[in-house]
Amino acid sequence: MSIFQLLLGRRLANRESGTRRIGAFEGVPAMGLDGLGSSAYGPEAALTVLIPLGTLGLDYIGWVMAPIVALLAILFVSYWQTIQAYPNNGGAYIVSKENLGANASLLAAAALMIDYVLNVAVGISAGVGALVSAVPSLHPYILLLCLGLLALVTLVNLRGTLDAGRLFALPTYLFVASFLAILVIGIVKAIAAGGSPDPIVPPPSLPPATEAVALWLLLRAFASGCTAMTGVEAVSNGMSAFRDPPVRYGHRTLTAIVGILGILLVGIAYLAKAYRIGALDQSQEGYRSVLSQLASSVVGNGPFYYVAIGSVLCVLALSANTSFVDFPRLCRMVAQDGYLPKSFAVAGRRLVFSVGVLYLAATAGALLIAFGGITDRLIPLFAIGAFLTFTMSQTGMVVHWRRAMPRAGSGREQARNRAHFAINAVGALTTALALGVIVTAKFAEGAWITILIIPCVIALLKAIRRYYDALANSLQESAPLELDDLHPPIVLVATESWNKLTDRALVFALSISPDVIGVHLTDLAGPQAENDQAAIREQWRAYVEKPTRAAGRNPPRLIFLEAQYRSLHEPVLKLIGELEAKFPRRRLAVLVPELIKRRWFEHVLHTHRALHLRMKLLALGDPRLTVINVPWAPDNVR
Amino acid sequence: MSIFQLLLGRRLANRESGTRRIGAFEGVPAMGLDGLGSSAYGPEAALTVLIPLGTLGLDYIGWVMAPIVALLAILFVSYWQTIQAYPNNGGAYIVSKENLGANASLLAAAALMIDYVLNVAVGISAGVGALVSAVPSLHPYILLLCLGLLALVTLVNLRGTLDAGRLFALPTYLFVASFLAILVIGIVKAIAAGGSPDPIVPPPSLPPATEAVALWLLLRAFASGCTAMTGVEAVSNGMSAFRDPPVRYGHRTLTAIVGILGILLVGIAYLAKAYRIGALDQSQEGYRSVLSQLASSVVGNGPFYYVAIGSVLCVLALSANTSFVDFPRLCRMVAQDGYLPKSFAVAGRRLVFSVGVLYLAATAGALLIAFGGITDRLIPLFAIGAFLTFTMSQTGMVVHWRRAMPRAGSGREQARNRAHFAINAVGALTTALALGVIVTAKFAEGAWITILIIPCVIALLKAIRRYYDALANSLQESAPLELDDLHPPIVLVATESWNKLTDRALVFALSISPDVIGVHLTDLAGPQAENDQAAIREQWRAYVEKPTRAAGRNPPRLIFLEAQYRSLHEPVLKLIGELEAKFPRRRLAVLVPELIKRRWFEHVLHTHRALHLRMKLLALGDPRLTVINVPWAPDNVR
Repeated sequence: MSIFQLLLGRRLANRESGTRRIGAFEGVPAMGLDGLGSSAYGPEAALTVLIPLGTLGLDYIGWVMAPIVALLAILFVSYWQTIQAYPNNGGAYIVSKENLGANASLLAAAALMIDYVLNVAVGISAGVGALVSAVPSLHPYILLLCLGLLALVTLVNLRGTLDAGRLFALPTYLFVASFLAILVIGIVKAIAAGGSPDPIVPPPSLPPATEAVALWLLLRAFASGCTAMTGVEAVSNGMSAFRDPPVRYGHRTLTAIVGILGILLVGIAYLAKAYRIGALDQSQEGYRSVLSQLASSVVGNGPFYYVAIGSVLCVLALSANTSFVDFPRLCRMVAQDGYLPKSFAVAGRRLVFSVGVLYLAATAGALLIAFGGITDRLIPLFAIGAFLTFTMSQTGMVVHWRRAMPRAGSGREQARNRAHFAINAVGALTTALALGVIVTAKFAEGAWITILIIPCVIALLKAIRRYYDALANSLQESAPLELDDLHPPIVLVATESWNKLTDRALVFALSISPDVIGVHLTDLAGPQAENDQAAIREQWRAYVEKPTRAAGRNPPRLIFLEAQYRSLHEPVLKLIGELEAKFPRRRLAVLVPELIKRRWFEHVLHTHRALHLRMKLLALGDPRLTVINVPWAPDNVR
Repeated sequence: MSIFQLLLGRRLANRESGTRRIGAFEGVPAMGLDGLGSSAYGPEAALTVLIPLGTLGLDYIGWVMAPIVALLAILFVSYWQTIQAYPNNGGAYIVSKENLGANASLLAAAALMIDYVLNVAVGISAGVGALVSAVPSLHPYILLLCLGLLALVTLVNLRGTLDAGRLFALPTYLFVASFLAILVIGIVKAIAAGGSPDPIVPPPSLPPATEAVALWLLLRAFASGCTAMTGVEAVSNGMSAFRDPPVRYGHRTLTAIVGILGILLVGIAYLAKAYRIGALDQSQEGYRSVLSQLASSVVGNGPFYYVAIGSVLCVLALSANTSFVDFPRLCRMVAQDGYLPKSFAVAGRRLVFSVGVLYLAATAGALLIAFGGITDRLIPLFAIGAFLTFTMSQTGMVVHWRRAMPRAGSGREQARNRAHFAINAVGALTTALALGVIVTAKFAEGAWITILIIPCVIALLKAIRRYYDALANSLQESAPLELDDLHPPIVLVATESWNKLTDRALVFALSISPDVIGVHLTDLAGPQAENDQAAIREQWRAYVEKPTRAAGRNPPRLIFLEAQYRSLHEPVLKLIGELEAKFPRRRLAVLVPELIKRRWFEHVLHTHRALHLRMKLLALGDPRLTVINVPWAPDNVR
């Protein structure tokens, strides 16, 4: 069993692809970790902006979270429709391409790609960061832990999305179950206590207010809280992973992810207010996350607390998996349209697009190494991609509904289209607004880098497409086969002395053409090498010329070429030039007998002149020149 | 101008080899640095053994050095004869091969190879060690200096022996001139002072005697002093470097090296006694080498002293050059006899055997890195190789003269042969004795490693020869060309859709055979890839079948093969197997149209299926299968 087999599992045939698709059970862990993980940092991010309001901030958390949850609902409806309209990998790229044109689709593709790469780096380092702050003795190994986790996620995804979905199901559902339980217990207690329950472990008291309420502060809290929505687009981008009928499983998965996320957001907002839990300053001693405060307030610091907090860690650390499911599928679509190298569109050993997986791992790994495993500074670059694609996807759907309007028959369909149009228009405007707030608020912190990189990526994608277009143009042939010149080629056979290689090569050459020339190179080893031209000519006469003449054929000539510079290809190329000038309408074929080397040491024991000659001849790209390899494996040689 | 051209100089043609040969002027620096450098450590090594005798030791230095100089004279005569008898690279390998048989020659080759590799590592680290003890601030850079020096010597020798001889002439002749001057001044002063001159800077006084004189001590001093002779064999091994007539230039170079070395040895021994200079313990504070004490005793510590000692440093550090001149030439002879890979026998860009140069550099570099640039511990391994080859070369010459005796005509020739015989017999016995003493004295210190490695090297050389013999056997063809089956092959043409590549490939295929089959692979990209078989079949009908039928030819069939595992070669190999079973007497040719990629990014933009298919087909080594590459360079593609 090879190492590949051990690590990646057996090779899968095309016909097995059906058995490798996933349902909603695997879909939630495979694609939802990014979205579900958002509940851990979205409310916290909003509450962090509200810190200056002190206890008053908690009275506004409802005002901030309500539009977020509303926006989430709009996105849910929008992506529900997108999945229905584009059941084979939808997402912002396809929606933009179909409704907004190629340029818009490339903008969406570039934004998504950057988003996915950053999500891997940031997700892994955030997970490892949380782990290290819980177990400080691991601090020296941050980068190692990050790369190990990256390798794990990469390996699992190279085995296939199904494997990833199954393996990561445990931590995902553990997280969902424990936090739903905490929310239910907390809400029951809160209602029983008339809205002001007693925490089991009281959270730190909130600092006094330092600012008054202002619209800009609330807007910023909303923009920060919007990070709770990242990952919602994942299902639409990974549709090709689902088993038939994909729309049904896509809808189920989307509903599960968004539903759980919505419940978590509402529940967290309610309990934060009820238990008076605010965000703490991360840079201060004694920092605890909102979820950690919430869990210990509701259920105390017992074993359940540790299980719940451990599952949060896992979800954060594995949120990279969403990128690994979607990025290769996005790249495949972009590659099929000619904007990325073709290898991104080829299914690998396990029917996943391995080149995309490996590229994502390499890029994210480079980022992790460059930043030493601490990618906080990349976070400002991060949300832009997500909100840009939200906006584009919504805008695309707006155009979609507007186009559908004139075609709609009944008044009822008209009304429904108008409702969809309105929902997507509100969604597009809101996500655009959030994008504007994020860009404005984070421009100086590094968002400008994303804004700079996106056009570069688009330019690269377009350059690739231009290359493929030009290539296809130059390859295009509209005329049928022309058969007026089927003269066999002049065949040059590279020979050393008379042996089985030469024998086989000459027989093949004579079987395809009457015009065969033997070419013997002298002085290949250097000036003092032995060259017994007379003996070789004598062999040629006896072993080649005599039998061919006896068979009534034109006997092959033997030409000696001097290899003044110890290389085969130069004198051969010169001879080819002379022959082409002499026979301007003939094709030429160079026949290179090649000893097959099956064991590593044979590569050391032979000069690689045949290989080198073949490469140099092919590199000419001469349309009249063909290279023929006659392989010969000396199987009886120890 | 490429980087190669800049570093190595322009390429040299075979016909220029005459202009690249050296005379005695370049021969002494190129081959003599090892031998001349010996004068710096030979007498010192003998005096070190004599330390326990105190001042009495100096009275015995004459008794120790006299047989060494006598042995040097015997070696001189012996190698003089060897050069005459074997003007194209003689040395221990050839002498043993001609007179003692293949096994003996391999023993000599193995000993010489190990000796040369060790000489590079030990020479460079000794030179750098001396430099660092003079300039202690360089201590942290020992390994870097060693590798830099190794790179310099490698590069110069890749440019050619002529370049090495010219570049290193300055330090060599500076060393010779300054020490001959010191000797002359010192001897004149000593004679003028009646044998007891006053030193300008007095040497440290000698320690009191701790042992009495004993034969074993003197023998050990002799054995240690014998290291003064290493490098004497160099000229005989590098004969092919000399211009015509090589024997004359070889004799001149040998005479110059041995003459200067002999004068230095005698002079140093005389002056050491006259000025009461003994060896100091290297491990003690205030250590100074014998040559350094001698120079400052004779000429004081002025500028001349520094020039002289600087030239000693250079000669020691560059003594590796002798290996770089001889090792590749030795390996070439061994490779020509089939005991080393053939590439060792191919002259490189500058007409030196570059593979040997690079192999030597790599091996010595690995030793330097493994020992951190301090190779003192390798010294015990070192002298064995030299003395083993001396002994073998002398023994070979003994056999040579014995064989010549019956053939000798005149009584005078008889007498001369007998004299030669006697000289070489004494030489062989003495060097064998020295070898015995060295092995005994240094066995535990590491000499056993050499004794262990030599048989391993011999076994490897023999294994290589066995491979080449078996290969030649299996390639051997004694029958002339058989022409009873010249049926053209069945040609399989790998096609995608109808384009210029397919067009050209089919025309070539039809020009060599009437039996052409188009092969189209489906599902290459994976299960969800588009495969419009109907359209492709329609194209084939219109563009291929129609015109061939119109031309009165058998129209090529089109076969669709399903690539269940996304690889080209598996279905093609299966088809080949089926065809071979169906047509057991036909040859098969697979025609692979190949897009030529001239720029690096094109390698990224294409899958490498054609290359992969070619490799897999060739690796089969099927005698009935041929691979044809039709290259096509899309020159108009940006």
